[in-house]
Amino acid sequence: MADYLPTEPYRGTRDFLPAEMSTRQQVFHRLYEVIESFGYQRYDGPQLEPVEIYEAKSSQEIVEQQLYTLTDQGGRRLALRPEMTPSVARIIAGNMGGLTFPVRWYSHPNCHRYERPQKGRVREHWQINVDLFGSTSSAVEIEFVELIHAMMHALGASRDMYRIRMSDRVLLDGVFREILGLDDEQARATAGLIDRWEKSTREQLAADAHAAGLTDKQFERLGEVVTAGEGVLDMLSEQTRERSKLIEVLNTEARELIEVDPLIVRGFDYYTSTVFEVFDTNPENRRSLFGGGRYDNLVGLYSPKEVSGFGFGMGDVTLFDFLRTHGLLPEPDNRVDVVVLPTEDALFDAARQAASRLRAAGLRTTTPLEVRKLGKEIGRADKAGARAVVIVGPDDWSTGHVTVRDLSTGEQQPTTLDGLAETVAPITR
Amino acid sequence: MADYLPTEPYRGTRDFLPAEMSTRQQVFHRLYEVIESFGYQRYDGPQLEPVEIYEAKSSQEIVEQQLYTLTDQGGRRLALRPEMTPSVARIIAGNMGGLTFPVRWYSHPNCHRYERPQKGRVREHWQINVDLFGSTSSAVEIEFVELIHAMMHALGASRDMYRIRMSDRVLLDGVFREILGLDDEQARATAGLIDRWEKSTREQLAADAHAAGLTDKQFERLGEVVTAGEGVLDMLSEQTRERSKLIEVLNTEARELIEVDPLIVRGFDYYTSTVFEVFDTNPENRRSLFGGGRYDNLVGLYSPKEVSGFGFGMGDVTLFDFLRTHGLLPEPDNRVDVVVLPTEDALFDAARQAASRLRAAGLRTTTPLEVRKLGKEIGRADKAGARAVVIVGPDDWSTGHVTVRDLSTGEQQPTTLDGLAETVAPITR
Repeated sequence: MADYLPTEPYRGTRDFLPAEMSTRQQVFHRLYEVIESFGYQRYDGPQLEPVEIYEAKSSQEIVEQQLYTLTDQGGRRLALRPEMTPSVARIIAGNMGGLTFPVRWYSHPNCHRYERPQKGRVREHWQINVDLFGSTSSAVEIEFVELIHAMMHALGASRDMYRIRMSDRVLLDGVFREILGLDDEQARATAGLIDRWEKSTREQLAADAHAAGLTDKQFERLGEVVTAGEGVLDMLSEQTRERSKLIEVLNTEARELIEVDPLIVRGFDYYTSTVFEVFDTNPENRRSLFGGGRYDNLVGLYSPKEVSGFGFGMGDVTLFDFLRTHGLLPEPDNRVDVVVLPTEDALFDAARQAASRLRAAGLRTTTPLEVRKLGKEIGRADKAGARAVVIVGPDDWSTGHVTVRDLSTGEQQPTTLDGLAETVAPITR
Repeated sequence: MADYLPTEPYRGTRDFLPAEMSTRQQVFHRLYEVIESFGYQRYDGPQLEPVEIYEAKSSQEIVEQQLYTLTDQGGRRLALRPEMTPSVARIIAGNMGGLTFPVRWYSHPNCHRYERPQKGRVREHWQINVDLFGSTSSAVEIEFVELIHAMMHALGASRDMYRIRMSDRVLLDGVFREILGLDDEQARATAGLIDRWEKSTREQLAADAHAAGLTDKQFERLGEVVTAGEGVLDMLSEQTRERSKLIEVLNTEARELIEVDPLIVRGFDYYTSTVFEVFDTNPENRRSLFGGGRYDNLVGLYSPKEVSGFGFGMGDVTLFDFLRTHGLLPEPDNRVDVVVLPTEDALFDAARQAASRLRAAGLRTTTPLEVRKLGKEIGRADKAGARAVVIVGPDDWSTGHVTVRDLSTGEQQPTTLDGLAETVAPITR
């Protein structure tokens, strides 16, 4: 027996066949439309980036454990991008002179992370990134909250299906200093603890807190803070509160669009202020769908000019899990509209002329690759989703005609080539 | 002075800023539409593939010199795909049971090749791949020729700007055996020679032919063959001609859509029959734009079932060079349609309501992130390409109104929120 190569895609990556691809494209196009309606413009960047741009400010977990790296023949150390934010900060810094701020940009890259494949986690995912550069106004936070609600609405999600939970690293820092009295190292460990809060047992958290040097009293106080919700704001000093964008958001009507939640931390080192995550409210699937926040110092890695950034990345895997759970996946829309059938070999050229007219009118049209029994071909056309066939037979064609058959009614009518598209189009709608 | 990270993308890769991206997207969408009008369905596959799928049947040059490879933490040898054909053959083989042949598929992956960057060559390019599986009929060749003409037409190219040059490895093989009397090894070397024919001097070609073991007589005869164009067909035996798809194409009206050219070889090992390339006719840029052909044995690497394939890959770099040379690049279409301007902080929420109405009507709408002088903001809106601004002032708003200003005429008119989209839309067209 011959040895065959395996047909499975590389572990943690995916093949998308046309039916699934069609569903995906419909979802993505709805999102692109909403994002563009907010004035965001699409850009793109390379898959391969110098490793250094991640080492500088991404999460430790990504850089140390999840990065796909290679060295090219010229000795350059490269990574397959694990996320888009460092790339967009690089591009902004490199093109600063030609840009008018605020800059509103979006992209849809594939990103690679070496993870153990499991529900919601793959090694190659597609992530819609939306970023705004050049404003420290809390109007940015509000614009993003509105944008996210508009995106979810466009996908058919109602407000009860998800919530936007927002926090602020300025407030978190206040919690660590003012309320818990932690030093830098303890604060860092405690941020990680908060990030794991909902996924770990109380015992595990207590053990970790102890290992990080927190007293029982501090751990108890931490428990009060993380469950306080918006109440955490009252525990902090006026000075800390004034530096928070989140408080400004809460002073507008946009406050109804979010929930304050001190548990939101986000794993990336570059966030400096507001952070948020969007959660599925389904009890079976209470997961973070996506998230983002404000990063004021990332462009500064590339340029002496500081440019504040705000953005989020929406990954496809959790998004499609969400849509599936809530019954919001659109049906594939891949069908052929019409099939043109010559009844004999000599009429292939005639059939091609007919097909060409239909395609020019925007109809998805195929012709068979060889002449077979008409009844069989009509059955195949029906199976491919076609609503009509055009039969090109010798008698019709000798008078410049073809026959249009409506596959749902079986009705047939002759038409000229000039009248063809007009006759077929209404049947395919 | 601080050390900044470099802002240039990795050598041979590209950042696409919104203006260029908008031009690209318009070109790509026109092509997607045409391809879908021929009944082709979009699919996608992973960026990373096992190295073996290229080692089996790609070109030697790609595998030995141009492949970006890495070994993952599990010890798997992976490559960044240098082309899409091996992936699509793998996917077809792995999903054979659920497919109805002929299968018409297309995709638009980015591909990586380690090349010395120069005009027309980069290390990451985007390639539209169109493939048909499951038919050995020469109607496939004709469908692809028609598709390519339709794609070029959709981009504004007229027939005099490019030509489709087609050959057939069956005929080439006939040339090697019947006309030149070459053995296998000589034949392989001579194929390479033909591929370089137009780029090399006669002296260089003669020296290479000599090195490959061809006699002066054989080299002279080779020269006659490669310049014979369609005449080469008359030099071959009936038996060879009968196995050629190209001859079948020439027996239809589609013969007017191609040129026969024995110089067309194509560098990939998997082609078994028809091969073609599309050339720019501009004397400054007589290059191959893209090409493809028939590959009958590729799916057989993965499966005992042989499935004939035909397809091509259209790379972005040469395509956009062509469009630029011929003045066919579409203008970027990135402008904002309308800007909503609150005249004071207290009216931001009102401005957001107005913006939300306009976006729901499909208008690209922004609001500023802080209140500034109205005159300045109107100037900025104009610069961003907006055709209208909506002014939200306290007097208007107290009666439920806003003011719409046409930026080209300066005319202003009040409207309610309910009438807003209807008032603005005609101005932005």
